Amino acid sequence: MKIGIVGAGSIGLLIAGYFHEKGHIVTIYTRTIKQAESINSKGLILEKNDQKTLQNVKAKVFDQQVLFEDNDFLFITVKQYNLDDVLDQLKGKFNHSIVFLQNGMSHINKVKQLQFKNVMLGIVEHGAIRISQNHVKHTGNGVIKIGLLQGNTDEINKLENIASPSFPIEYVKDYIHILKSKLIVNSVINPLTAIFQVENGDLLTNPFFNKTAKDLFNEVAEILELNKEYYWEEVKKICERTKYNYSSMNRDLFYKRRTEIDSILGYIVECANQQSKTVPVVQTTYNMVKGLELKK
Amino acid sequence: MKIGIVGAGSIGLLIAGYFHEKGHIVTIYTRTIKQAESINSKGLILEKNDQKTLQNVKAKVFDQQVLFEDNDFLFITVKQYNLDDVLDQLKGKFNHSIVFLQNGMSHINKVKQLQFKNVMLGIVEHGAIRISQNHVKHTGNGVIKIGLLQGNTDEINKLENIASPSFPIEYVKDYIHILKSKLIVNSVINPLTAIFQVENGDLLTNPFFNKTAKDLFNEVAEILELNKEYYWEEVKKICERTKYNYSSMNRDLFYKRRTEIDSILGYIVECANQQSKTVPVVQTTYNMVKGLELKK
Repeated sequence: MKIGIVGAGSIGLLIAGYFHEKGHIVTIYTRTIKQAESINSKGLILEKNDQKTLQNVKAKVFDQQVLFEDNDFLFITVKQYNLDDVLDQLKGKFNHSIVFLQNGMSHINKVKQLQFKNVMLGIVEHGAIRISQNHVKHTGNGVIKIGLLQGNTDEINKLENIASPSFPIEYVKDYIHILKSKLIVNSVINPLTAIFQVENGDLLTNPFFNKTAKDLFNEVAEILELNKEYYWEEVKKICERTKYNYSSMNRDLFYKRRTEIDSILGYIVECANQQSKTVPVVQTTYNMVKGLELKK
Repeated sequence: MKIGIVGAGSIGLLIAGYFHEKGHIVTIYTRTIKQAESINSKGLILEKNDQKTLQNVKAKVFDQQVLFEDNDFLFITVKQYNLDDVLDQLKGKFNHSIVFLQNGMSHINKVKQLQFKNVMLGIVEHGAIRISQNHVKHTGNGVIKIGLLQGNTDEINKLENIASPSFPIEYVKDYIHILKSKLIVNSVINPLTAIFQVENGDLLTNPFFNKTAKDLFNEVAEILELNKEYYWEEVKKICERTKYNYSSMNRDLFYKRRTEIDSILGYIVECANQQSKTVPVVQTTYNMVKGLELKK
């Protein structure tokens, strides 16, 4: 199959590498000319279990001249805050299947309005680090979970062909549920480990960080209408499993990069406003991360 | 007059220096033998406006053998969290006048219960840095404000003799009011500049830190029953006046020392509980500072 991937961060490069390894024709759409040139001239290095393989994926700069119709499937892996630009470009230009792999949930309504033919939403449960512009390291095995937002259910079956045993794609009926599950985990672990500049496990072992996490969790669970007992256990499990890891938002603040706070806690604040509920801990945590983003 | 000063941090050393300069016989009670020896052998260096003077104050280790009765006035300058030890020692041993110069308000009830003869409460609006064990630098001119908690009003008049034009003591009738004013400023500026590790002025210039400060302020003002418009202006004025300074709590966290959070936001949480009010922003900020204190 012909697969296009928009966005060449760690997740974009990771899925490009695995899909090419499976035998698909993969084109990756990058933001910079430099990265496209790097991938085209040197190939994409996919590193897993200390082994490196070279994947000959093609790369193109994502711009107005791009013809997405060449692809059977398009995977959108850009951050939520860059999605509007991508959607502007795609509008009316693509009639096959699109899979959105963003954190958060604020893209759902935007995407619905654009009336693409086949739209899927998914979450990525892999760990990956972009080592250089054409080199990605797979640091944690997981799964991609995908649900159908709108369109032809036959497209779902094609996902099986795209996936491979070492890089599975799981179809889930209730996509809202999987997006919510990921959002609540991201809402608690990401902002707090970023503000405190600690590893994920510290939210369990430091009793005061743990209290803060629980208070934040309770407000988010209320807004997302999720079962508190069950999901608090989930949050704790993930903190335990990734206890020596730094969250992506922790690293974003550390390296003074923009964070995804707007699509995570910003979205919760919006939902709370719509529900006429106050979420003081969410609001405070949101403001803190936004402020730290601006800190020199 | 004979003046005893318990606690040899920056404020203890500062007032010891100024009171001795005025001609009083000053004894400073230290926690460590080392500091007492340093002061006794080398004298106390009082630095102001780039000039250093040597003040021959006496120093003694604060222990059970100390005879406080030698002093006409006793100034207690230890941190709130060390106050219990000091009160245990003083109980029943001192019948002259005691002045408590702690941050926060949680000491008021404790002190009342001990039924000392003459008790005054005050706040110190000076900037001072302890350069070494026997050297203090006066970095910001201000005033000491003192009110009478219980006892003989004649004692108030003696404060005039203790003070000097360059180191004034102001008598205030409404001591609760001055303690509250200082507490609300400390409640907002100290914890937030500590969590964010920024200078005081950033709470004005960073719009998201400013929002957080306002939300925290509103909850504290509610609990202390203070006029919000007036005191928010006060907080802003102090942030502006000290914009390039790091707050004491900022430095405490930076140097991994214990902070005064319990006597500041911890006290507000207690008051809120007594008033059956919820203070989510205060509670979250309190937990964050407590957690950061434990961070390795």
